[in-house]
Amino acid sequence: MINKLIENIKKTNAPIVVGLDPMLNYIPEQVKKKAFEEFGETLEGAGEAIWQFNKAIVDATCDLIPAVKPQIAMYEQFGIPGLVAYKRTVDYCHEKGLVVIADVKRGDIGSTSAAYATAHLGKVSVGSQKLAGFDADFATVNPYLGTDGIKPFVDVCKEEKKGIFILVKTSNPSSGEFQDRLIDGKPLYEQVAEKVASWGEDAMGDGYSYVGAVVGATYPEMGKQLRKVMPKTFILVPGYGAQGGKGADLVHFFNKDGLGAIVNSSRGIIAAYKQEQYAKFGEANFADASRAAVIAMKEDIAQALQAL
Amino acid sequence: MINKLIENIKKTNAPIVVGLDPMLNYIPEQVKKKAFEEFGETLEGAGEAIWQFNKAIVDATCDLIPAVKPQIAMYEQFGIPGLVAYKRTVDYCHEKGLVVIADVKRGDIGSTSAAYATAHLGKVSVGSQKLAGFDADFATVNPYLGTDGIKPFVDVCKEEKKGIFILVKTSNPSSGEFQDRLIDGKPLYEQVAEKVASWGEDAMGDGYSYVGAVVGATYPEMGKQLRKVMPKTFILVPGYGAQGGKGADLVHFFNKDGLGAIVNSSRGIIAAYKQEQYAKFGEANFADASRAAVIAMKEDIAQALQAL
Repeated sequence: MINKLIENIKKTNAPIVVGLDPMLNYIPEQVKKKAFEEFGETLEGAGEAIWQFNKAIVDATCDLIPAVKPQIAMYEQFGIPGLVAYKRTVDYCHEKGLVVIADVKRGDIGSTSAAYATAHLGKVSVGSQKLAGFDADFATVNPYLGTDGIKPFVDVCKEEKKGIFILVKTSNPSSGEFQDRLIDGKPLYEQVAEKVASWGEDAMGDGYSYVGAVVGATYPEMGKQLRKVMPKTFILVPGYGAQGGKGADLVHFFNKDGLGAIVNSSRGIIAAYKQEQYAKFGEANFADASRAAVIAMKEDIAQALQAL
Repeated sequence: MINKLIENIKKTNAPIVVGLDPMLNYIPEQVKKKAFEEFGETLEGAGEAIWQFNKAIVDATCDLIPAVKPQIAMYEQFGIPGLVAYKRTVDYCHEKGLVVIADVKRGDIGSTSAAYATAHLGKVSVGSQKLAGFDADFATVNPYLGTDGIKPFVDVCKEEKKGIFILVKTSNPSSGEFQDRLIDGKPLYEQVAEKVASWGEDAMGDGYSYVGAVVGATYPEMGKQLRKVMPKTFILVPGYGAQGGKGADLVHFFNKDGLGAIVNSSRGIIAAYKQEQYAKFGEANFADASRAAVIAMKEDIAQALQAL
C-alpha cells in the first residue's frame, strides 16, 4: 500500500492528504437541515449530515489528491451511527481510488493490538469466513506500549499489504512534555524514531517502508533531524494550515526525491468556505471552496519543494 | 463516579474488575452455533455470539463484582456489528448496577481528544439535543501526547462526574522500551505518574481523584513506588492471572484503607471453563465456571490484603 500511496502522489503531483474530520459546526446549515428532516436531531441525523458533507468534499477534490485521512474520533463521538458514517466514507473513498489513512491512534498489547490491527486493516475469522471490519489502507498507532503494541500491526500490514504511521512527534503545543524529554542525551521522540526505523526495516515497499511516522508540521527543526534518523520512513505531517504549519516549514520533511512525506490539512480544506479568502463561494458551494483550498495548498507545497 | 466505584467495591468487598474481552475462541461452540444459525457466519453473527456470551457471564457474576472492563478492540475487530455488541454490553452492565470501565486507550489532542471523551464518557450536541454515544463510566487514556490530550478528558469527567485511568506502566513485557527509560534520573513512567497526580488534584471525589492510573500487576516493585508517587490516585491493575500477576504481588498497589486499586482479570474469568481447575463445569455451564473463578480471585486478593 505504500507503493500505491507513492503512485497516487506521483499521479496527482501532490504529497498531500485531506483530513476528513467533520465537526457538526463545519457542516453547512442546509446539509444539516436536510439530514435532520429525514432522521431527526438524532445520532443518525448527525451521521447522515457527516456522510453527505464528506461525499460532497470527496467528489469535489478526489481527482486532485492521493489520499484522505478520516479522524475516527470525530465519528466515534456520534456512537454507532457516527461509525456507520465513517465506514461509508472509507468505502466511498476507495471507490474513488483514494488511499485511506485511518487516523485512529490505537495502541495496546499482544492480542488486543492484533484486534485493533484486524479492525482497521485486516480481516477477522468468523467461522469459515474472513471478514473486514473497517478496511482502511493505513492506520496511525501510538508507540507508548513498545514493540508488543507495534508488532501485531506490522504482522497484519505484511499479510494485507497495508501500512501504519507511528506517532513520533505530535503537532500539539504540549507534545514536548514527554516526547522532548532527554534519555541518554536524546529526546524521547528520537528514541521512538530509531525504533520506527528499525521496525520498518523488514517491512519494505519498493523504496519506502510501510511502517511510517507522524511528525507535526509545527516542529520543522525536529522534522529535519527526524528525516535523517528515518531515511526510508514515510512521514505523515499534520499541523499544516489551521495549526500554524506553512509550506516553507515542510521542505525538510521530504527527501531529495520529492517523496518521503505527506502533508495533512483538515479544517483548512473541509471548512474552507468559512475562511475569508474562500467566502465568495458561499455556504451552498462549500465543496467548491474545498477544491480551491486544495489547489492553493498544492501550489504552496510545490513552491516549497523547489528548494529541495 | 469514583465514589460510586468505591461504594461498589465496599458493597461487594471485592476490589476487582472483570475484563469482558471476548475472543471468538473463548466462546463455547453452542453459543456460536446458535448465533450463526440466526445471523450466518457474518459480523452480525459474531456480534450476537459475543453479546450472548457476555450477558451470561454478567448474569452469573454481577452480584459479586463492582465493575467490568470491556476491551473495545475485541469488539472493534468485528466492525459496526461488534461495536453494537459493545454498546449493548455497556448498557446491560449499567442495568445491573455495575461500573463500566471502557478500556479504549484513546489519546489525541485538542478537539480530537474532546471528541473521544465525548464519545465514551460524555454527550454530543445534535441540534437542540444532547446525546450519548457509548456512555461508559471510566475510560482508559494514553498519555504520550501530554496535557493537550488529557485535559479534554478531565473536562468531560468534571461535567459528567465520570473518570479516566491514564496508562502509566503497562503490564506487557516490552513496556519498558520507552516507559522505563530514565529522564533526569527518573523513569518515564514515574514522570507520567507525577503528571497524573497533578492532573488529578483538581478532580477529586471524596477520598480519591477521578483521574486514575493504569499500572500492570506484572511489575509489583514499580507498583509500590507508584503508590507513593500518586497517593490519591486509584490504580487500575491489569495483568493478574493469565498474564502472570498473583494476589501476593498486589498488596503494594493498595493503600492502608484497603482501597486505591482495582485488579482486572479477563481471560482468567471469562474463559475459566477452559482451565483444568474449572473443567468440571463443562462448556454448557461456562458462566458458572466464571462465577467460581470470580470467587477464587476474591479470596486470593482478600488473603493478600490481610498483609496491609
